[in-house]
This record gives sequence, structure tokens and C-alpha cells, in this order.
Amino acid sequence: MSPTPTSLPPAIKDTSKYVLACVASSPIVVSSQPRGAMGSYVQGEDEVPVYESGAEIVQKLQEKWKSTAAPFPAMYSSVLGGIILDPAMMSIPLDDHMVHRGHGVFDTAMILDGHLYELDPHLDRFLRSAAKARIGTPFPRDTLRSILVQMTAASNCRRGSIRYWLSAGGGDFLLSSAGCAGPAFYAVVIPTDYSQCRHGVRAVTTSVPMKPPLFATMKNVNYLPNVLSIMDAEDRGAFASVWVDGEGNVAEGPMVNVAFVTAAGELVLPAFDKILAGCTAKRLLALAPRLVETGLLKAVTTRHIAADEAKRCSAEMAFVGSGLPVLPIVEWDDQLIGDGKVGKTMMALSDLLWEDMKSGPDRIAVPYK
Amino acid sequence: MSPTPTSLPPAIKDTSKYVLACVASSPIVVSSQPRGAMGSYVQGEDEVPVYESGAEIVQKLQEKWKSTAAPFPAMYSSVLGGIILDPAMMSIPLDDHMVHRGHGVFDTAMILDGHLYELDPHLDRFLRSAAKARIGTPFPRDTLRSILVQMTAASNCRRGSIRYWLSAGGGDFLLSSAGCAGPAFYAVVIPTDYSQCRHGVRAVTTSVPMKPPLFATMKNVNYLPNVLSIMDAEDRGAFASVWVDGEGNVAEGPMVNVAFVTAAGELVLPAFDKILAGCTAKRLLALAPRLVETGLLKAVTTRHIAADEAKRCSAEMAFVGSGLPVLPIVEWDDQLIGDGKVGKTMMALSDLLWEDMKSGPDRIAVPYK
Repeated sequence: MSPTPTSLPPAIKDTSKYVLACVASSPIVVSSQPRGAMGSYVQGEDEVPVYESGAEIVQKLQEKWKSTAAPFPAMYSSVLGGIILDPAMMSIPLDDHMVHRGHGVFDTAMILDGHLYELDPHLDRFLRSAAKARIGTPFPRDTLRSILVQMTAASNCRRGSIRYWLSAGGGDFLLSSAGCAGPAFYAVVIPTDYSQCRHGVRAVTTSVPMKPPLFATMKNVNYLPNVLSIMDAEDRGAFASVWVDGEGNVAEGPMVNVAFVTAAGELVLPAFDKILAGCTAKRLLALAPRLVETGLLKAVTTRHIAADEAKRCSAEMAFVGSGLPVLPIVEWDDQLIGDGKVGKTMMALSDLLWEDMKSGPDRIAVPYK
Repeated sequence: MSPTPTSLPPAIKDTSKYVLACVASSPIVVSSQPRGAMGSYVQGEDEVPVYESGAEIVQKLQEKWKSTAAPFPAMYSSVLGGIILDPAMMSIPLDDHMVHRGHGVFDTAMILDGHLYELDPHLDRFLRSAAKARIGTPFPRDTLRSILVQMTAASNCRRGSIRYWLSAGGGDFLLSSAGCAGPAFYAVVIPTDYSQCRHGVRAVTTSVPMKPPLFATMKNVNYLPNVLSIMDAEDRGAFASVWVDGEGNVAEGPMVNVAFVTAAGELVLPAFDKILAGCTAKRLLALAPRLVETGLLKAVTTRHIAADEAKRCSAEMAFVGSGLPVLPIVEWDDQLIGDGKVGKTMMALSDLLWEDMKSGPDRIAVPYK
């Protein structure tokens, strides 16, 4: 069957008004009544095209991409069993348990100067997350690693990042993954022209609830709390939000760790017991003792740190995450941190990390063709 | 470029051993070192095929489906702008914010005897969930509804369910949806040969943490807690789990509500303030007063109910959800409920709901061709 031309309204970008209008005009009642005549289907509406042929669908999707450069140069899918270069085909089955139940875990790695940085610690965390989420893998670790390197090579991307997912796989749309055919592996290359952050940003404490430690410590795709908390921060003119836990201690940002330099010259990162152990944060903790040797820092530690104390007494504060790698926070909830300027200790830590990314020991030269 | 034949190991179904083996053999260290030679890529590994052409990918995916009946007869995607009948193409873009960040909401409706049951209250809840999750819609409510009815008609499915999602849409893989192109709408038809449940099942209290009320009351795809709790229940030989909140009150099941009949003949459902207001549960509350008229029930109420009290004192207990619609629970955490047999009040309530599904006022006759 050929698709019927449609006169459906085009997709609308800012549609929050629709949602609000619909909700406002449709008060919910416990005993609901249908809106139209009982049992009858309202006629005269726009017909939705029906596509029987896969080839026709590909053609239609490819038309969308014809005039635009593909934003992502390569994807891998274990469902296909190969690397995909056509942006129209960079997709995941709708019945995948990650799509409709959030039963998937992910991780990342940065690409800089044609090298993958710290892929192995990220892969280790990835597999720990999968085990916690009761997700297997279609391939052993070495094969996953090899696929990621080959995908990066095929993408020809020299600066950006890769992201990859293990999922419980496709199945029967039920809640348990018992009926899924087996785990799936997906990955993508995301080019980004990032460089070392040198400016300071604002942070705000968010009231969006934190995840319980079980879910915060495994990197899974259930990121709606993270999404809503960064959107809350953006609404308030901040770069990102900070979670403070039920005991009043600093937890983490929505996709980054948080670090402080105290007035006494101590580098403090919140303990990782209730939050994600960031790979960049761990690398920072490994490199920072060099600044103790030079006298710029007195000590390096992870511990619980009260938000009130951190806000009032810190000399410097920063977000820490891959791609930043250290982003100074100069204001938190309208309170200046230290003198409200980018501090020299955080920048020295940033230099250590950036140097490690540029020429450190844990870099894989991507075998581009 | 043609795909290179690959000798990668085939996908393995039970791969938990891989995850465990990998984790065991890869202790994480703060200062990580690469496994291979520094900066070099390990050669001699299996080459992953690279697909440049979308048409070739479709062909390969279609081969997978050639010998199997399509499990899902129709899908709708606003990215394509049409209904998809080819199972190989029933997918969602990987960069969709629902896939990689869980930034999507969903809802359902049952199909019985060629009718859609209670679609409107489900659609109302769907749009309330979307508003809470800060997700818009590409079309107004009437169009969403019309698309769902047309998709069901195109599927030719007479018994089963539909499921549909609103997502923040495709974008840049960042955490905020600010860079997404606009909301997307997806839907699918899931045939199921379900009928009224008449047997009793076991339930167990789960220790998997509950979601905070903000997230429990909006039906979003962040269902990893639900997945892990039902898998926990299945491991323990139960049909499903029950969440008990921090105050010791009964909350809900992982995809169903819970209901009790007290020894005094009162139907009690836990209050909806911290849990999802189930459409079937609400319909049950609307229909149950008929059993008060006949004298089978004394009262119908929603309130907080202590799990300890409910377990010891209930005469009957059940899961309530679309497709069940009432599933008697005869044992909870090794404690028999009432006399441990399927009770007559729950079955009478089930009959009311099943009758409503078969011939009630809120049914849309699907206009099959």
C-alpha cells in the first residue's frame, strides 16, 4: 500500500501549550465517559499514511537527512551486527527493554586528538553497572572494546566522545526481561569541539529528588531526575544543579561530580557511597597528590561534606567530569564561592587532567583508515 | 562499502557469566593503566562490518524476520509521520531523549473484541505525565487519539493492547532537552490473548527502593526499579512484588495497584498520593459501590493502610490493572490472605470490571478495513 498524502498538522516545536490546554480541558473523573457517541469512531479525521514496505520507510527517512549533515558519524548495533553510517538508520528497536522500561546501562569515553581516553576504566564501570542492573552482554569484554575502537575508527572523528549501552534487549513489552531474546549492545560517536574549561559558572541546589544509592551508583538510563534537575538549573540561569542528600551533605551534579578546595588547602570530593564514582573524579584524586608535592594543596580526600559548610567555607569549587574536565563554580545559590573568581588550585587540577588527556598513559590510538 | 563477513562470536543469551567474569578480572583502580601496549591498538581482532547504505541495513534486518511472524502488527512514529507494518523498521532513533535519558512518558489501553477500552482516561493521564516530565506533544490531543485508533485499525488486532509514548525527541545526546528538535510520539499494538484472571497468585514485599512520589505519580519510562522488583519477585516464585513505603504503608505493585477487602467487608485501595493512580483501579472504585448496594461490600475507600495490618487482617487481596483486571493474591510473604483461597468479593469485583470492558460505556469500536 502506498502512503496516502496526509494533511496532519506539522510537528510543532514548542508544544507545552498543547499539553497544558489538553489537561485543562480534560478534567479526569473516576467514572469516565467517552467524549464521542458511545462505541462509535469519530469520522472525517485526517488519514495517517500506512507503510508496508521497509524500503519505502528508509527512503522517507533518508529524505529528512538529505539536506543536513549527519550529526553522528557512526553507530554500532548488535541487532544489526555492524557499524551504521547512514543517519536515517541510527535507531534501536522500539521493543528493546531499554527503550520502554529503562532497562539499560551506559558509559562514555572521550576522543581527543584521535585517541580514546581512559576507555578501560569506563568499560569496567559499564560492566559493573550492567551486573547491578541484571543485564548480560552479547559479547565478552574484549569484543565490546574492539567494537568501540573500530566504530571510532570508522567515524573518522578526532575530537568528541563515544557513548555505549548494554540493554536487556528486545522482547515482549512485558515488565520482566524474562521474555527478552538476549542482551543488546549499542554505541555511537558524538563529535564535539570541546576544550579545557577556563571560565566560572553558577550552580544551584535542586529540589528534584535524588535517586536512591542503588540506582545512583549504577550508570543506567533512568535519567529523568537528572534531566529535570538540569532543566531546573537552566531555568534559574545556572550551568547545572547540585544535589544535597537527606542528611544535608553534598552529593553530585546531574552528570558530573563536585569538588571543593577548602580554605585550609584541602581538596575534598564527596564520598562515593551514595553517588556515581566518576571516572574523571577518580583520575583527579589519583593526580592531585602532585599538587601536594608542590605545596599548592595540603591534602586530598573524599568524605561526607555538609552543604552549608561547603558553601560558606570553601575557597574554590568545581564540577568535575569528562569533557570539562574541571569547571570552576564561582557562585552557588547566590553565595559567592571564595572571592567569586576562578581559583588557581582548580585551574592547576584542570591542567593536570587536561595534560593527562593529551599525553597521559591511558590513551588508545584510534586506527583510522 | 560492502559488509565484511564477520567471525564475531554469536550473541549469547545467558551472558551473566561474562559480566561477572569481566568484573572479577578487572579490579578498578583510581589510577588506571591501559591493558595493552601504551597508545597502541591491539591488532588481529575480528573486523566489524561497516554499512554505508540504509537499503542494505533494511535488507539485513528483514532477513532476521523472514522466518518469524511479526510479533507486533503495527507501530506509529511521528519521526516517520506514519504507521509502520514492517517489523524490521519498528524502531526509534538512538538519539531520542527517551532512549538515552529516559525522558519519555507512556500509557496504554486494552483492545477487547475489536474495541479500545477507556482510551480517554488513559490519554488524559498520559498528557498529565508529559506535562510533569516537561515533554510537549507534536500534535494536539485529538490527533494523538485519532492516530491511535487508526494504528489499531491498521493492525487488525482484536485482542491485546496498545502502548504509546511521548518523548522529548531527538537531539544532541546532551542531558538537557534544550537541544532536542521537538517532541516525538510513538505507539505500538501488542496482541495478547488475555482473559479474566480466575486463579490466585503469591506476592512478596520487595526491598528494591521505591520511586519518590514525583516520579511514581507520572507514568514515565524510568522503570528500572519496577523491572528489578518484579525480577526479584519472580526469583522468589511470586507473580509480582509489593512496595511498602517508608512509613510501613502499602504502596503499589511494579505495574499494578493493590486492593484489599477487610474482614469487615470494606474495599480498601492505598491512597494515590505517592503512587500511580491506576485507570483500572479508579474504574474499580467507580463500579464497586454496586456491590455495596447488593450487600456484598460494606464500604469502598482509599486511604493509607499499614502493611502489617493488611497482611494479618485482610479477608481478600488482589492486584488490579488493565488486562487482569483483578488478580487475587492468596499469599503475601508466606502469610496466607484470609483462608488462602480466591475470594468471592474480589471475583465479583473482577466480574464488574470485565463486564465493563466487554460492554461498558467507554469503548471505541475500532474502524477495521
